[in-house]
Amino acid sequence: MGYSIAIDAMGGDGAPQVVFDGIAEFIKTHPDTKANFLVFGQENLVKPFLIPSLAKHVTIHNAEEVVTGETKPAAAVRMGRKTSMAMAIDAVNNGMAEAVVSAGNTGAFMALSKIILKTFEGIDRPAIPALIPSDKGCTLVLDLGANIECSAENLVQFAVMGSVYMRTLMNIAEPSVGILNVGSEDLKGNQVVQAAANFLRDHPLVNFYGFVEGDDITKATVDVVVTDGFTGNIVLKAIEGTVRLFARQLKKSLSENVLSKLGALIAQPSLASFKRFVDPRLYNGAMFLGLRKIVIKSHGGTDGVGFATAIKVADELVQRNVILDLQAGLEGIQ
Amino acid sequence: MGYSIAIDAMGGDGAPQVVFDGIAEFIKTHPDTKANFLVFGQENLVKPFLIPSLAKHVTIHNAEEVVTGETKPAAAVRMGRKTSMAMAIDAVNNGMAEAVVSAGNTGAFMALSKIILKTFEGIDRPAIPALIPSDKGCTLVLDLGANIECSAENLVQFAVMGSVYMRTLMNIAEPSVGILNVGSEDLKGNQVVQAAANFLRDHPLVNFYGFVEGDDITKATVDVVVTDGFTGNIVLKAIEGTVRLFARQLKKSLSENVLSKLGALIAQPSLASFKRFVDPRLYNGAMFLGLRKIVIKSHGGTDGVGFATAIKVADELVQRNVILDLQAGLEGIQ
Repeated sequence: MGYSIAIDAMGGDGAPQVVFDGIAEFIKTHPDTKANFLVFGQENLVKPFLIPSLAKHVTIHNAEEVVTGETKPAAAVRMGRKTSMAMAIDAVNNGMAEAVVSAGNTGAFMALSKIILKTFEGIDRPAIPALIPSDKGCTLVLDLGANIECSAENLVQFAVMGSVYMRTLMNIAEPSVGILNVGSEDLKGNQVVQAAANFLRDHPLVNFYGFVEGDDITKATVDVVVTDGFTGNIVLKAIEGTVRLFARQLKKSLSENVLSKLGALIAQPSLASFKRFVDPRLYNGAMFLGLRKIVIKSHGGTDGVGFATAIKVADELVQRNVILDLQAGLEGIQ
Repeated sequence: MGYSIAIDAMGGDGAPQVVFDGIAEFIKTHPDTKANFLVFGQENLVKPFLIPSLAKHVTIHNAEEVVTGETKPAAAVRMGRKTSMAMAIDAVNNGMAEAVVSAGNTGAFMALSKIILKTFEGIDRPAIPALIPSDKGCTLVLDLGANIECSAENLVQFAVMGSVYMRTLMNIAEPSVGILNVGSEDLKGNQVVQAAANFLRDHPLVNFYGFVEGDDITKATVDVVVTDGFTGNIVLKAIEGTVRLFARQLKKSLSENVLSKLGALIAQPSLASFKRFVDPRLYNGAMFLGLRKIVIKSHGGTDGVGFATAIKVADELVQRNVILDLQAGLEGIQ
């Protein structure tokens, strides 16, 4: 049976071009997809991008207004359900679509999603999680930017959500959870991480490891790393930047002289397996974890390939019925 | 003319063994050094490590007490000048030594240094800076963990110190300064970074660029990146962890099969130039920037090679007369 994914055509640096490129790319790489796309945007701006090959997968819905990168979250909420972003979210709320994807303003997208779709019981604020490559495969880190300032209670809720995510989506039996800090000793850090650690030490739903440090993310010391959205966002981008610097330097190293070029040529197939790790477009698409529906945020600066990856994340989460699993994990135990 | 460097023999995970290994390694790799070492520690524990080859470079000074990893900064201060850490710092204060090195408890080392040695005029708290590799060479990031919670005024002072550091020590004419944030737009972030940015926009001593993101560190968007010690410490370690993961994965990639092994062998000389970047021991030794004397903190978990690097940093800063330059830069303009 088919299903629909709602798309905000007006969000992101390259909208609406990049959004349509992304839909086209997704359809090309997933020819058997059962997904249709409800695309929300200013009709006169969006229509020209509806090329014939897309027409049978895409329906366009006119939105009078647009949330820009400069719109404050409260202002986006006041604009009501006239913006392409709010209309796309509303399509999920009223059952027209199973998931919504936007590359627009993160704060506005979060505020609107929270108001229209609501959070699970016991969760005050959604968080953005990401799976970061590590020696064991990957570590779930959250929050990556949805909540700039967090209370100890927020961090505790992130720990619970991260545990449920790794248990239900990654099949890890008792995921261990660490709080990101400047040292692993119990005395380290500020009051928020101290208080959160105190709550988690006796928490019935969380297998709490204790504090972890920045390098524990890639060392896979724990399955889930919890932090506030300020630190998390900066750390994620610093890791991405480091990987890209490393890749550039390596490329330079391997093209220094004839001998190293030959070496690079011979090692090519092995290095190719490495490249995936370096392409941030292949990691695009972050879920707002804690909402009652599937809401996917794409990087604002991505291209069509990146936006297609965000659609793929939405599509997979729809197919895996992730919301039912999360709800069972989070609310089944209240 | 010779000079002395004061060493806390009791700080760090492997003390005093690692400390003496570090001194021996430094002397071996710098046979012409003019530095002597005043080593402070519990005599009965330290004496056995004074092997004959070290005797002409090292004098041991008995300290009755020790600051451990668990000692809170206030407690370390109350212990007075009986600890090896406080005595080593005091040796710099009374002119016996030109610099002090410890791998011990960061909070205690900072608190004692501040009380005994004082900060420059206009600087409330010292910061730990580090030069992080980037496309342009390196980016100075501070604070990396000396100050877990920072006010806007602290961040402004870090911006001034970072500018002076890059101008006087790295010969960069008008170093650009960015504040680390979750986005580059003016509206982003918490109140502390917002207020700091407002101060810096019209600051006469700082070439302020604006907000930068996590990946701007390795992209060399600015010369100096300012952040609080909580975020800075976690980011530094996340970058280190990523480089190490990348190195491990690369090694695995290049040893997958006969062909890639051959490729790796041929590319070896090029890859070697890369290794330095990956070895955190070669980056050990962080200055407490803002103090009136040279104070160098070594990683607590380092080995002899790492401790020797921290000594080398101290030695170079003594030879470059860095304190005079910093004082001229910071106070000459008051």
